Amino acid sequence: MLSTDRAPDIRDIREAADRLAGVARRTPLLEAPQINALAGRRVLVKAECLQRTGSFKFRGAWSRLSLLTDEELERGVVAFSSGNHAQAVAHSAQLRRTPAVIIMPSDAPAAKIAATRGYGAEVILYDRENESREDIGAALSEDRSLTLVKPYDDRYVIAGQGTTGLEIAQQAKAAGIEKADVIVCCSGGGLTAGIALALEADAPDLCARPAEPENFDDFGRSLIAGEQVKNAKMSGSIQDAILTPTPGDLTFPVGQRLFGPGFAVSDDEVLSAMALAWRWLRIVVEPGGAAALAAALYRKEESNGDAVIVTASGGNVDRAVFERALKKVKD
Amino acid sequence: MLSTDRAPDIRDIREAADRLAGVARRTPLLEAPQINALAGRRVLVKAECLQRTGSFKFRGAWSRLSLLTDEELERGVVAFSSGNHAQAVAHSAQLRRTPAVIIMPSDAPAAKIAATRGYGAEVILYDRENESREDIGAALSEDRSLTLVKPYDDRYVIAGQGTTGLEIAQQAKAAGIEKADVIVCCSGGGLTAGIALALEADAPDLCARPAEPENFDDFGRSLIAGEQVKNAKMSGSIQDAILTPTPGDLTFPVGQRLFGPGFAVSDDEVLSAMALAWRWLRIVVEPGGAAALAAALYRKEESNGDAVIVTASGGNVDRAVFERALKKVKD
Repeated sequence: MLSTDRAPDIRDIREAADRLAGVARRTPLLEAPQINALAGRRVLVKAECLQRTGSFKFRGAWSRLSLLTDEELERGVVAFSSGNHAQAVAHSAQLRRTPAVIIMPSDAPAAKIAATRGYGAEVILYDRENESREDIGAALSEDRSLTLVKPYDDRYVIAGQGTTGLEIAQQAKAAGIEKADVIVCCSGGGLTAGIALALEADAPDLCARPAEPENFDDFGRSLIAGEQVKNAKMSGSIQDAILTPTPGDLTFPVGQRLFGPGFAVSDDEVLSAMALAWRWLRIVVEPGGAAALAAALYRKEESNGDAVIVTASGGNVDRAVFERALKKVKD
Repeated sequence: MLSTDRAPDIRDIREAADRLAGVARRTPLLEAPQINALAGRRVLVKAECLQRTGSFKFRGAWSRLSLLTDEELERGVVAFSSGNHAQAVAHSAQLRRTPAVIIMPSDAPAAKIAATRGYGAEVILYDRENESREDIGAALSEDRSLTLVKPYDDRYVIAGQGTTGLEIAQQAKAAGIEKADVIVCCSGGGLTAGIALALEADAPDLCARPAEPENFDDFGRSLIAGEQVKNAKMSGSIQDAILTPTPGDLTFPVGQRLFGPGFAVSDDEVLSAMALAWRWLRIVVEPGGAAALAAALYRKEESNGDAVIVTASGGNVDRAVFERALKKVKD
């Protein structure tokens, strides 16, 4: 059995990069003069929406699944997710030819459920009001001995997500940037922690900082409080991909040691950021994936320096929500 | 004076690649299993919509402008274009710190005019009905001795666009593809010719084939006729970026020697291709930039083999047109 219940070190991240080579995409670091002008400094956008399955989650899922033993592969994997982690685990399992069971809330967007099934996963829907996904998952794990793939509190998942940071370190250097904030769309903190650990080793003057939805900025508030605080609510933002109750147990200590202060952005700001990314970067970003760009654009007084780097973490978005973002385009 | 009025050879293309290094982007070759399933084979998408200024045109413009002498730079450049070439020349001129005059039709999309001005160019609008852009351009060239940057019938412009082909050759090999059609959105034929010349040298089993709008497939029909034939009309398709009256004088002989048969696709098919690119590749493609993907999806019986490569040549699209494409998304 692998010991998954500690945070990765830089060696774990480099080993994950080896496993991801030729499987995950090395996503581009994009820049547009029009966005720079609006933000008042260079804004470099790590376009993880172009990653396989449309989000950075593929890196963590593949990192974990690539370590499964033949016996584990024969039994299969299980994950809980309403969106990007679901698709990442499903597609990784498809590539590893192992069965995947994804437990999704019955009110998840139909398009995300269909996409997850499209990657060959068995999707089990549960009623958020009356059923416990943990009970369903525990029963499945017991009956079928499936390996649970956690979305962030797993050493190898964080290590895979941290490969984003290795690439940012190289790409920032190539772009002539040595010192800057790296603003990361933050949920449980796996991507932010992974990036922070990679930057600590490869680009120590780049500082990872979490961006979260207003009223759901548990990580930013926890950093200030010095302990894991919870959000008051679990729904009420279109930034669905980054609504988690509280920082992860593995990611929070990394955050305390390495993260800069957090940002909190509104849904309206995120829709405007999506519109600008559509127009000037020609990428499709979902609300939760646009929080960091929104922070660069609308919290500029909270950063210093000539440049900032942001993650565009995902691009799985419903048409209706995207149409709302397009309404923000000024013609 | 440079001799610009012949087609480039492979050495010209490799030299252009040297000049473009660190300036133009090496765009990714994207793939999505959902699009592969619809097309019945692998479809690899060269995402030039992620290029600087949002289209491959930047490669040709920079290739040409990077060769200007100090005297030419002092005087400036002039170009005719309603869209992507306009922005590419304007931004290249901005980077080279030389004045740019762009002659655009007064009925060009307001967003494209604004973007061109945003790159610092002087935009001169003319009335398509009552004025001749050639007369305006000739007067400007004479008065101010500006260097005319042609959109395709220029050795160094084609060479710059051909760098796309050098990258496709490398990326296809890395993706395990040795033999395939390379379908290219085709207007005057500069991109298709440049790619064909690059592939001839670096990947001779990849075959460049032009994709054009239905009723505006002058290149495809010219290849069959053995001479440069003209389209009956000059407007009437949303694929505005690839409506030209007839193949270029430099590009047509390259096409006769190297191109495979052409494709013609409808506006409706192009809108569906844009919707699929939005959903599964998370890129923004304009109508004229989606013709090749539409050919891969809706003319599949006209290709052979396990894989096809297509260019997504540009992503500068009005909101209203993009909203029409989104209507094609099946939720």
